[in-house]
Amino acid sequence: MLCKLQLFTGYDVKRFVKHYTIAEIQGWSRIYRANFVNSLSGFKPVSLIATVGKNGQPNLGVFSNIVHLGADPALIGFINRPKEAAPHTIRNIEDTGCYTINHIRPDFADKAHQTSAKYPEAVNEFEAVGLTAVFKDGFIAPYVEESLVQMALSLSEIIPLSNGTFLIVGALEHAYVNEHAVAKDGFIELAKQESMVSLGLDAYYTTSPVQRFAYAKPDQPLGELSF
Amino acid sequence: MLCKLQLFTGYDVKRFVKHYTIAEIQGWSRIYRANFVNSLSGFKPVSLIATVGKNGQPNLGVFSNIVHLGADPALIGFINRPKEAAPHTIRNIEDTGCYTINHIRPDFADKAHQTSAKYPEAVNEFEAVGLTAVFKDGFIAPYVEESLVQMALSLSEIIPLSNGTFLIVGALEHAYVNEHAVAKDGFIELAKQESMVSLGLDAYYTTSPVQRFAYAKPDQPLGELSF
Repeated sequence: MLCKLQLFTGYDVKRFVKHYTIAEIQGWSRIYRANFVNSLSGFKPVSLIATVGKNGQPNLGVFSNIVHLGADPALIGFINRPKEAAPHTIRNIEDTGCYTINHIRPDFADKAHQTSAKYPEAVNEFEAVGLTAVFKDGFIAPYVEESLVQMALSLSEIIPLSNGTFLIVGALEHAYVNEHAVAKDGFIELAKQESMVSLGLDAYYTTSPVQRFAYAKPDQPLGELSF
Repeated sequence: MLCKLQLFTGYDVKRFVKHYTIAEIQGWSRIYRANFVNSLSGFKPVSLIATVGKNGQPNLGVFSNIVHLGADPALIGFINRPKEAAPHTIRNIEDTGCYTINHIRPDFADKAHQTSAKYPEAVNEFEAVGLTAVFKDGFIAPYVEESLVQMALSLSEIIPLSNGTFLIVGALEHAYVNEHAVAKDGFIELAKQESMVSLGLDAYYTTSPVQRFAYAKPDQPLGELSF
């Protein structure tokens, strides 16, 4: 405990902080730079995105750059890497307009990560990694049966970014959530559902609740809410 | 432990999962819908973004929709809400082209959340909430001194989205990270730095490492890496 106190309080907390310039970062090897920069922006809401091709072939991939865009209308975005590197999910969404996002639990994090392997187009990643595709409500893209928090989206827009990546924006159509995880005010306590976060290219974490805060107002002390 | 087993294995894991349609979600009150939809997409990499206005006035706000866009060039994006709701950060970035992103630790999560109060434009949120602005390397936007993982960005592009929000893309210029948190392959173990995630509108969490996986390949068992 003494070590922890030394590490995390007062002056010592900054003792080993190093300044990295972009010139230095650009000089690193490709994989070192990718690990560093990919970790730097913080933990990510990792999920499995499932689609089907025009021929009905299911596809499953792990994605971590997912953003909440708005609640009314309910829009969720995610980043698809350049088409050369990650062609299948984006093409299926362009072709069908439909996909599902499925949270990942520790039970199947290894299977989720295995979907990042470059399987040939004819391979159904659900079968290759041992996860279960389930179809519901007539929605044409499957959900991941093992996932406890699932949602279905219809394509709203695809925005190409300057570095060859794409922001894919979807409108929420269906959500599947444990009703006991939904608080009285609509908040979903996802740690209870074991929803994971990822970090960098390959690391998976669970979370622990610290605090909910009340709506903040100038010149008022900040209130706390219970989980 | 029996309860946990019942909850998280086999059939029972799905026992209380409820189907929510978009029609039902649209019928909810504004705040219930905002809490639900904002939580649904998962945990978020919450950080403080600092800017200065043309007159040198510092501004600080908490942002959670941050995405890694690429490592070479190193690009990080974040979502700014519509200008009516959140005008200061985006205008300062348009005016100066510069901002910093600073991870949040439990020590000052309350102060970080308090920056979400609608302070008048003339208020410096650093002073209002009790955080410390520090200037480094001649970069015109300040960093949050209390933060253990800090980065500076220059504006690359601002992309308006269909719902009135903006994707702001920045190029990495400087990073400040504890050198002992950087692994041999460049990965940054951010749980050691107590970098938090947020959920929904107002909840803050810490994380715990579960597993790093090796680069996945088809037809090979997935390897594990140590943290």
